[in-house]
This record gives sequence, C-alpha cells and structure tokens, in this order.
Amino acid sequence: MRIALAQFNYTVNHFEYNKLRLIEGIERAKENNAELVVFSELSVCGYPPLDLLDRRAFVDKCIDAVNEIATHCKGIAAVVGAPSYNHNPFGKMLYNSAYFLNNGVIESVHHKALLPTYDIFDEYRYFESNSDFQVVTLNGKRIAITVCEDMWDNQPPTPGVPRSNLYRLSPMEELAKQNPEVVINLSASPFSKNNFKRRFEVFQDKCRQFKLPVVHVNQVGANTDLIFEGSSFVLNSKGEAICKLNEFAEDFNVVDIKEQQAINIQTQANSIAQIHDALVLGIRDYFYKSGLTKATLGLSGGIDSAVTLVLAQKALGSQNVRVLLLPSQYSSQHSIDDAVALAKNLNVKYDIVNISKTFNVLRESMQDVFGNAPEDITEENIQARIRGTMLMALSNKMGHLLLNTSNKSEAAVGYGTLYGDMCGAISVLGDVYKTEVFALAQYINENGEVIPKNTINKPPSAELRPDQKDSDSLPDYEVLDKILYHFIEGHKSADEIVVLGFNEAIVNKVVKLVNATEHKRMQSPPILRVSPKAFGFGRRIPIVAKFI
Amino acid sequence: MRIALAQFNYTVNHFEYNKLRLIEGIERAKENNAELVVFSELSVCGYPPLDLLDRRAFVDKCIDAVNEIATHCKGIAAVVGAPSYNHNPFGKMLYNSAYFLNNGVIESVHHKALLPTYDIFDEYRYFESNSDFQVVTLNGKRIAITVCEDMWDNQPPTPGVPRSNLYRLSPMEELAKQNPEVVINLSASPFSKNNFKRRFEVFQDKCRQFKLPVVHVNQVGANTDLIFEGSSFVLNSKGEAICKLNEFAEDFNVVDIKEQQAINIQTQANSIAQIHDALVLGIRDYFYKSGLTKATLGLSGGIDSAVTLVLAQKALGSQNVRVLLLPSQYSSQHSIDDAVALAKNLNVKYDIVNISKTFNVLRESMQDVFGNAPEDITEENIQARIRGTMLMALSNKMGHLLLNTSNKSEAAVGYGTLYGDMCGAISVLGDVYKTEVFALAQYINENGEVIPKNTINKPPSAELRPDQKDSDSLPDYEVLDKILYHFIEGHKSADEIVVLGFNEAIVNKVVKLVNATEHKRMQSPPILRVSPKAFGFGRRIPIVAKFI
Repeated sequence: MRIALAQFNYTVNHFEYNKLRLIEGIERAKENNAELVVFSELSVCGYPPLDLLDRRAFVDKCIDAVNEIATHCKGIAAVVGAPSYNHNPFGKMLYNSAYFLNNGVIESVHHKALLPTYDIFDEYRYFESNSDFQVVTLNGKRIAITVCEDMWDNQPPTPGVPRSNLYRLSPMEELAKQNPEVVINLSASPFSKNNFKRRFEVFQDKCRQFKLPVVHVNQVGANTDLIFEGSSFVLNSKGEAICKLNEFAEDFNVVDIKEQQAINIQTQANSIAQIHDALVLGIRDYFYKSGLTKATLGLSGGIDSAVTLVLAQKALGSQNVRVLLLPSQYSSQHSIDDAVALAKNLNVKYDIVNISKTFNVLRESMQDVFGNAPEDITEENIQARIRGTMLMALSNKMGHLLLNTSNKSEAAVGYGTLYGDMCGAISVLGDVYKTEVFALAQYINENGEVIPKNTINKPPSAELRPDQKDSDSLPDYEVLDKILYHFIEGHKSADEIVVLGFNEAIVNKVVKLVNATEHKRMQSPPILRVSPKAFGFGRRIPIVAKFI
Repeated sequence: MRIALAQFNYTVNHFEYNKLRLIEGIERAKENNAELVVFSELSVCGYPPLDLLDRRAFVDKCIDAVNEIATHCKGIAAVVGAPSYNHNPFGKMLYNSAYFLNNGVIESVHHKALLPTYDIFDEYRYFESNSDFQVVTLNGKRIAITVCEDMWDNQPPTPGVPRSNLYRLSPMEELAKQNPEVVINLSASPFSKNNFKRRFEVFQDKCRQFKLPVVHVNQVGANTDLIFEGSSFVLNSKGEAICKLNEFAEDFNVVDIKEQQAINIQTQANSIAQIHDALVLGIRDYFYKSGLTKATLGLSGGIDSAVTLVLAQKALGSQNVRVLLLPSQYSSQHSIDDAVALAKNLNVKYDIVNISKTFNVLRESMQDVFGNAPEDITEENIQARIRGTMLMALSNKMGHLLLNTSNKSEAAVGYGTLYGDMCGAISVLGDVYKTEVFALAQYINENGEVIPKNTINKPPSAELRPDQKDSDSLPDYEVLDKILYHFIEGHKSADEIVVLGFNEAIVNKVVKLVNATEHKRMQSPPILRVSPKAFGFGRRIPIVAKFI
C-alpha cells in the first residue's frame, strides 16, 4: 500500500490557507500514485486552537472545511484532523477527531481516546474521550486510525509527565482485536530537547508489541510559544524506521510499506543544534503568522542579547532587524564595543541612545516622593524600565516587534525587571538555561567568529551599578542551572535536591528565589518552549501562597 | 444529627496555618455538641494548589497533615479535603478526596468523580476520576460524602460552561443506591455574578430528586485572582434552606438537620454590592496572604482609578494606601482637582509628580532614532510608560504593591499601554465592565459623596493628547459592553451578535480589536475574577492565529 505523509505548517484559525495546503497535499499524493495521504492532528484548524473550540462558529468552520476537502478525495483517500461534535447529550461537546475521506465524502470519523491534560496540554478541557474503536478498509487493507496520545498509554517517565500509565485504557489493544494491517497516527507533538527520541521509542514499542507497521505524521512549525519539529516517520512491523521526514521544515514523502528497506535513524541528536533550529523556526513563525516582518531588541554587549540577535537575524534577515544600544553611566566601553562589533558582523542597523539624561531627570522628578531614602534596587529598576520604554517606543514608531532577551536561569530566580528587560512580544531564550546560552554562542561561532569572543568570555553582569557581576549574588551558573533543573523540570523539593549533593544554603536560597518571583513570570511574554517544562502556560504555580 | 459547618479562609501551601484552623474547627464543633464537622474542598492545602500537586513532597505534606488532624477527632467525626494517591498503577497519580476522620484515625477516603476542566478549572490535569462510591455510617446514620462538582452532573447552561451534561456519570445516582440519609458536600466554588443562585438551584434540584438533605460547605477568601464567597448552606430533603452562612467572610454554624425550620434565602442578589464586597476581599487577601500591607496606584481623576482607590482603602485602610498624581501637559486642571479631592476625602497620602520633563527628555534622546517620523500613538505610550515607571519606582522604594486600575471594557479592546497603565501586581477592575464601574461608583456614593461627582459625570478620557475622549474611537460604553459580553461571556461570533440587533460595522470593529490585542492581555497582571468569563487563566485564546 502506497501511503503519502504530508508534514505541513498550519496557522491556527486560518481555514482558507490550511484548506489550500490540505488540498495541495491530496493532489500531490495523487500524482505520486498514493492510495492514502495522511495529515497531522487538527490540521484543518491548526494546533492548538485553545478556547476557539468553545465557539460553535469555529467548529462549524472546521467541519465545513472537511466537507470541502472530502470532495477532492476521488481516486485517493485522506485522513485529516479536525474537531467533531459529540452527538451524545452526555459528556464534553466535542471530540478530537481523524476524518477518513474517501470517494468524495467523509466515510468515517475516528475520535481520540487519550486526552493529554498535563504540562502545555489541555485537551480534556474541550474533548470527550472516545470509547468506540473501528478500523477502516481501503483497497482491501484494514487500517487502524489513531490520534497522537492514543499511542502513548504507556510512556517512559520524563519531566512533566507524572507517571508512565496516565490512562486506564489502551486504544491499540482495542483496535488490535479487529486485526488491522497498518496503523496511522496523526500527531501534534511539540518539540522539546530529546522529545524525538522518546517519541520514536514509544512508537517502536507499539510496533513491536502489536507487530504492525505505523505511519506517524507530526505537525511542523511554531504557534506562539509551541514549536513543532515535524520529524514524521514510518516504522515497519519490527519497529525499524523505513522513512523519516525533515525536522523543523515542511516535508512530503510517499512510502510503500511492504517494499522499503530499513534505514538508520539518529535518535540521540545534538541538543544545542536542535535548540538553535527550533528557536529560529519559533521566531520566524511568530512573525510570519502575525503578518509582521521586523524585529527590534536591546543589545547590551552581553551574551543573551547577542545570541538572541543572531537567531533573529537568521530567522528574519539582517534588513528586518534593528537594535538599540542603551548605555548608562554604569556601562563599560567594552560592552558598547562588543555590541557594535556584533551588529556590524551581522550587518544589522543599530543606534546608540544614552539613558543617563532621562534617568537623571526622572530621578529628580521623584526626589520629593523618595525623600531621604537611600539608593537601592529601585534605581536599577528605573534604568531597566527606561530602556524598556525606549525599545517599545522604537517598536511602536517603526511597527517592529520587540524580542525579549532574558534566559531561563535569570527568569527562574527573578533577576529581571518587570516592564524593563522583561518586555517583549516573545521571549526567545526564556526556556534556555544560561549554560545552554553559552553553548549556543559556541555553536554559532563554530565556523568563524560571529559573536565577539569577549562577549562570551567576560563574566556576566547586568551593569546596573558600578562593577556589578551576576556572581556577586548568584552561585556559578554551572551549579545554579543544575539546581534549577531538579526543581523545575524534576519537581524535586529543596530537601531532595540537597540529598543529590548540593550545598544546602545555596539550594534553599535558589528555591526561595524561584518561589518568590512567580508573580514576575506570570507577566512575562510567551516563551519559546524547548524543554519539557518551560515557564508559561505549561507550568502553573500559585502566586499567592505560603512559601517558606 | 448535629452537623457543624466550618467556612474558613485557607492559604495555599500554608500547612501550619490551615492545620491550626481545621483543628480549631474540630474543637469548636465538639464544644457545640456536633457529631460531625464539615470543611471545604482541599481545605488542608488551600484551593487551587495548581502544579504544586506535581510535587510529591507537597502531597506528602497534605497527607501528614490529615493524619495529624485525625488524632483530634475523638468523640467527633470530621470531613476534610485533601489530595490522596491513586494506588492503582493506571490513571492519574492523585485523587481529589474527602477524608472521613473518626475515632482518631482516617476511617475512609472518598474521591471526587467529576473533575471540572473548563474556564478556570484544571482538575483533570492532576486527578483521576473516581468510580467507586461508598456511604459511611456515623452514629447509625448513613452519610454520602461528595466533593463539589459531583453534585453538578446536570447544570443550567451558563457562560463558560459549554453544555448542561458535561459528564457521563451521576455520582448521586450511584450513592443513592446505598440509601444514604444525608449528603455532605465539600466545595471550592469561586464567586462570579449570580454564581450563588446557580449553585443554590443545582443543589435544590439534587435534594428534590433524591429526597435527601444536603450540607454544603464552600471555601471563603481569595487566592490570587479567584475569590470564594462562602455562602455555605444546608437544605432539607424538600430543597428548602434551613441554614446559610456569611458571604465574603468566615463563618461557623451547627445545625440539627431534623429540627430546624426552613428559612428564606435571597438568591437574586444586588450584583453591584456583591462585586464591591468581592473586590474588597480580593484585594485584602492578595496583600494579607502575601505578607504585605501597603498599596499604591496612579490617581488620574478618572473613574477607574477613583473606584480602585476606594476599594483599596476599604481593604487595607487609609494609612496603607499611597497614591501618585502624574499629570502631563495634556492633563486638565479639573482632573488634578478631582483626584486631590478624592485622596483628601479618603485621608490617603498623595504626591503630585509632573511627567512632562521626563517625557520631553526621553523624546529628545530618541530624536535621532525617530528621524522625521510624525507624532503618533508612540508618544501616548511613552507617557503611559513613564507613569508606570514612576509608580513602580515608588512601589519598589517603599515596599508597596502597585494596583492596576484598568477596566474590562478597555482591557477587551486593548485600550491600554503594555508596561504603562497595564502595570500592577493585581488588576482590581479588569473583570468589571465600564458600565459596572459607573454603577460601583454610584454604589460607593450611596450614603454621601466619596468620589467627586465630576469624576463620575465627565466624559471618559485617557488625556494622552489634547481634548482626547474615549468616545472619539469607541462606541458608547452602553453598546460596547453589551457587544463584549456576547463575544466574551457568550462565545458568540460577530455574525451572531449582529443578528441580535447591533450595528454590523461596530460589531466587526469591536471583535477585531479584541482579537488583535490578545498579546497584550497575555502579559496583564492577574485579574480579580467576578464574572463567569474573566480575562486570564480561564480564557485561553491563541496569540498567533489568523483573525480576519
């Protein structure tokens, strides 16, 4: 049986565009003599549609689109993803469904049973769980159609997933009773470091358990904070890969399940290269799908803004990025020089605006209010907020979007100023620990110096008071990042982290800082997600609570 | 049977405090010769604990606390709410449980079956659904113990709840088979306008259907954005109220289910008075539970900041509130006068800082960057952001929290400046439409003028350019608020709203503004929730999506 895999990049709520792509995929599959073409989960509306699903007009548009797409399925069958109504008066109003299109009509609808509702997933918010499983027959072949998580009833424990068996049902066990000859799986599995390895192994296990080939088509592209890597694949009944599609790019391929030879798949990827590619795609799609092209950011001479600028330039092109250098009396000349050197290396337009005058006038204006209160962190925050105001002013005036340059380590401990350096439409590095930011910088410089060496080698500093260094108040990033990983990704308590061999006073300090700054992250821009537990929608900690 | 209702205000994660309150409730119930004392849902840890539930150390603390509380249950039984582990290796790791404590130990644990996962609720994220129902016997009486939503398998359609029968199971039908004589219900049902009426009627229906008395204990107090009103009650088997506890305050009462006479309950409350009380409680608990006492805000002379100040002063006291007046060259003298008059009426310390100098210097600094670009909204945003910076500076310097003063109407259409007037730790009026803000002001002035008449009567204006009025670019608030209600609370499409009799061009403009400004609300402070569909956690719209 010849099956086409269409790994496309959809935009949420953009029915006209998505429909065109789906029809294009069907035509291309016909040209390639495929009998069936498979698209990804909720491809008709884009994933995740979130609360648009609460609007009947939205669901109706999905179903209208599916009906129109079905008319193109003559001489070929297709499986597309879209919501469908639950006609039983009990239970949630919708199903997350795979529509089997054949002979110009919707021949059958297959609903998802396992509804991921953890981390960034909220599917039980919208969908009823399916309990009725039916294989379909096409050209004499019996096909089991599954949606994403339905293959994940048993998964290896990992950060963000509390246990291996989150469900009481195995859809594949139900479907296996009907003796299918091949399994189709429509997915929207978001990228995170090592997600591909997990995904590949989960599907391999299922293949081997049921001795069935699996065709797995995953979404590609980014929607706000979520990045989908694609990397769709086909496994034979021994669990060997016989086809793998591009990562971080659209792709299309046709396989004959019987004929093809096993190929070698690299599951243990270079995670820094992957993060790099994911972030570039994340930036590009945020702009492209918003109908915007131009970005700005504040370039400090430090490593975070340097890496952010390189990624933005790769995503959008030099002509679409413009930066501001915003030195104060506390900025070192080498920081300015490093920032200018980078902007020149990348051929990016830059301006230098000294903030000291505004800072001094604002401070004078507040003198009566402050009275005799001594200088403290307030004055550091004022500088950061003047910078935020200037960057937003450039963005507003020129129709640019501001990129946030904070990294995950500083976001975690609250070393950032709300409405200051925490400004931005999207946070590029907010899910990248500082040690990984250094690795990204090295990776970027692999084929020649782009980011000035000095930016990478000098001790990190916010330069908000004379001779300030991050290491004055924080442990080394090598230690800090490990503690943060155990606390954030690992859900471990301070006591449990100390048992792993970390200094108790440092662990307690770090955990206290994270707990005390939830309110800041609550107001941060969306963060491009590259880890299994990013700040934002997938991590929900009470703001008002007692933390010791 | 004498049953005590303990309607207390818990703090999330504050085990020491919550435990003390629970033990205090048990002792007080003993003194009042109760046989059983009932507390609210997840009372041991506070509701909602959110992702703290992913941490085993947190769950273990809950269970340790329950065990300790149980030792106080001698000569009396108690029902407390806490998570428990799901010992079946399949399904979610936890249950949302009611622990029946008697004879000094945990005698049985009763799990919630219906897990609300809509609007602000995320319970299926953490909990497995129960399918095993057992009544308990106490002093010869058979008692059915239920947790909140287990009584809501059938509910009247309402904004935020997509359909009446969200579940395929009725826990009460299961429990009724065991012939209970009374039903206990532990709840954490958050306040919204008319929530009490719905809640009361849902419970009445269940009483009448099963001919059983119900003891319903609800949480009181606010946790970040969610406000719980209390208003616990007892219904006899005819569905008549025989006891109702305070709204927006702690309360404790003991009823003898057999003996008491039916009382009259007002279900149709004055919703403005309720919103007023809810917001005062919301502010108070945000500060109190964060260990803070002092608030600041920017007083413009307009109605939003005036109402916010009155509510803050009621919640925290005059001595704990301090305001800034931040006029510019575009501010009218009457706005300054009105603001000063209000601050004096409330005996609240105020300072006046003119922002013009800072504005002019910042603009001059940016002149080379802006080039010959004409004045536009950029300059308005700069003013708002300088104000935000000054307010945050006062907050940082004095250890105050900044209150945000935006209303729901302007938040909906994006008439606010990110990092400017959208700053703040908590948004007081972000779920209150402008027409309701006017009603609140009238209500506040009911017993004498507190808010200057001129503040209420003058046409709303942001005063960011000469002679600016809200009505220059927006429809009248009477019309705007109705359109917004149908779109936000009602999930209606623009077409469906036009059919209701609104002007098509206006509807399309409003809907477009709401869709185009999701990215702003994403970074807004948490909003005290008083409606069935507030901006924030309970409303999740994609930021990057195609909106026509």
